[in-house]
Amino acid sequence: MSVTAARGFVAAGGAIGIKSGGVPDLAVVATAHGRAVPAAGVFTQNLAAAAPVQVSRAHLAATGGSAAGVVLSSGNANAATGPAGVEAAEALCRLTAVAIGASTEEILVCQTGLIGVPFPAGVLDAVPAVVGARAGGAVAGAAAATAIMTTDTVRKEAVTTVGTAGGTAGGPCIVGGMAKGAAMLAPNMATMLAVLTTDAEADAATLHRVLRGAVRASFNEMTVDGATSTNDTVLLLASGLAGPVETDALAGAVALVCSELAAAMVADAEGATKVARVTVSGAASDAEAHRAARKVASSLLVKCSLNGADPYWGRVVSELGSAGVGFDLDRVSVRYGGIEVCRAGMAAGHDGAAVAAHMAGRHVEISCDLGLGSGRGAVLTTDLGYGYIDENRTTS
Amino acid sequence: MSVTAARGFVAAGGAIGIKSGGVPDLAVVATAHGRAVPAAGVFTQNLAAAAPVQVSRAHLAATGGSAAGVVLSSGNANAATGPAGVEAAEALCRLTAVAIGASTEEILVCQTGLIGVPFPAGVLDAVPAVVGARAGGAVAGAAAATAIMTTDTVRKEAVTTVGTAGGTAGGPCIVGGMAKGAAMLAPNMATMLAVLTTDAEADAATLHRVLRGAVRASFNEMTVDGATSTNDTVLLLASGLAGPVETDALAGAVALVCSELAAAMVADAEGATKVARVTVSGAASDAEAHRAARKVASSLLVKCSLNGADPYWGRVVSELGSAGVGFDLDRVSVRYGGIEVCRAGMAAGHDGAAVAAHMAGRHVEISCDLGLGSGRGAVLTTDLGYGYIDENRTTS
Repeated sequence: MSVTAARGFVAAGGAIGIKSGGVPDLAVVATAHGRAVPAAGVFTQNLAAAAPVQVSRAHLAATGGSAAGVVLSSGNANAATGPAGVEAAEALCRLTAVAIGASTEEILVCQTGLIGVPFPAGVLDAVPAVVGARAGGAVAGAAAATAIMTTDTVRKEAVTTVGTAGGTAGGPCIVGGMAKGAAMLAPNMATMLAVLTTDAEADAATLHRVLRGAVRASFNEMTVDGATSTNDTVLLLASGLAGPVETDALAGAVALVCSELAAAMVADAEGATKVARVTVSGAASDAEAHRAARKVASSLLVKCSLNGADPYWGRVVSELGSAGVGFDLDRVSVRYGGIEVCRAGMAAGHDGAAVAAHMAGRHVEISCDLGLGSGRGAVLTTDLGYGYIDENRTTS
Repeated sequence: MSVTAARGFVAAGGAIGIKSGGVPDLAVVATAHGRAVPAAGVFTQNLAAAAPVQVSRAHLAATGGSAAGVVLSSGNANAATGPAGVEAAEALCRLTAVAIGASTEEILVCQTGLIGVPFPAGVLDAVPAVVGARAGGAVAGAAAATAIMTTDTVRKEAVTTVGTAGGTAGGPCIVGGMAKGAAMLAPNMATMLAVLTTDAEADAATLHRVLRGAVRASFNEMTVDGATSTNDTVLLLASGLAGPVETDALAGAVALVCSELAAAMVADAEGATKVARVTVSGAASDAEAHRAARKVASSLLVKCSLNGADPYWGRVVSELGSAGVGFDLDRVSVRYGGIEVCRAGMAAGHDGAAVAAHMAGRHVEISCDLGLGSGRGAVLTTDLGYGYIDENRTTS
């Protein structure tokens, strides 16, 4: 159960021939009645935003924040493809709109795959059949989640209830979602796409606020290589069929679904041998803590050390010192798995065997305290090993 | 011929036991007469600056920009080592000063090696013997250049003359230098150290201005992993024995020596299979061009593509779009080896075999034009392959 868990949504997934061999490459998520409902989106900050990002932004702006459906394709990012790319993204929306009885501007679009390859317009003929097969239920939701996979090895779905406060129209409110991204491992096609649906009643502004907060606390706390894809998109549609809920409760549910989807991406880092959480506390602000954590988590040297299970905290300290945040080496401490290895900016006596045992595991916790304030942030990362290189050295 | 090429300088290199097995690990460069001469330094911007950086900065400030010598050790970075580390760096200066008849503040200090490991104070007893062996000539210079090597496979030296305008006291002015750093490959001990000497007559302020410009145009145009070492240091001492020269001529010579030393570091990237120059033109400013070039050159994905000889320009465009500089995809072009593969932000028809042939070589040229202004910048980088991981996954 994912995008079809909330009342009022249907989905489909199928093959239109972007990928070879009949591999699913087109998904649709739509309202069951085909009419637009409040919707919000959070998009990549990359200035080389792909055609689908440009089109979805324009459609949300034109409708004032509503959508009747989302069409998603995998196998071609439709990025750096010029005016023809924008026309292809619009055509995907137009064909989907016709099939479900909405207007083109009421359809949002997401695409993922290789950058700079012209979108094969010949596949568009096959779109109506896939959209026409949309249905409610878990099977249809799973088909949609499968069709957006690229280097993912498993489909990613999550669902939760909004709690007892909501669901006035019968039963609790639901938030569900699907995502694609094995960004921790294979940013060859690093794009992170997610579509969430809810049957809560909320306006577009509320949805946008809720979604922005959830993205900040989930997807934005992962990093592999600091790359911001040309296509990253997270969307949220609300059917309203379960009636109004408290905004805080909705925010919590949306954040939970985003976090579960983000965790699924991390768990899909099959070529990586380690997943590490880098936490920075004691920073001058939460923003500085997050910036410092990201600097450490993005460091090739730190990631190489993770691959070798080497608790070389000197590299962590060096990254903190060049993160562009408030920093006083004499106040810095570093822990691996809770064991302090650096105190007051110097080596701290510790149980080397215990640290080695922690580093040998798949999950590594690196905690840094800057000793300056109460700012706190965390970023997930992976090790850098042969697997990353094998996956990313060629696109063929 | 390197740091001993300019008149008035002597050098030595030897072993004091930081490294095991009698491997050379201490170098000294000093004025022949043992008195202080004008000197300047450029240091790492890392806020976790190592003890030797702290001490050298303080000494230069105390003397108002003069030095009688430089002592350099390898095998231990003496970074994140607290007050004991600062005392060890001061002790190195003190022992060197006594041996050459100068004051402690007239000695600068550089160290390189692992971060966070207490400096073995027991080795200090052996310092005077090495310093006492200092001499002029190429053999002594080479011994010094050898003793600062860590993961370097060859010692790095360069020398040039300042041109016809200088050398009023007999013969042309000379600038020579030595460096350590195989940063392109093995930033396990990523520190870049360089000591330059000249017999030109120049005051400390002039030397500092000249050195800063030379560093910006050489060492700062290399990147492997964006790491700024805790220990990076470049020093320049001027004996004045050749008399005054035009500042522009001196600047040119210092820049040339720095560029040759930087090129030697790139050439020493033995674990890398490719060296690539990323050039960005058409940026709004030189600073933005440099920032964009550095973003591309630091990208794990771009570096993986280099390893696979894959001309995937989509990644280059994606990095440019997220570099935080002025950017309009419709104006962007990308060339590999001069062959345009992306024009106006889209795929450009090109000779695929010619691009493949270029990518197959060891030296790759990636040229990006943003089409916005006249800003220009270039950064050297290497590919990311198994060799980088093998060198950096453990410190043992």
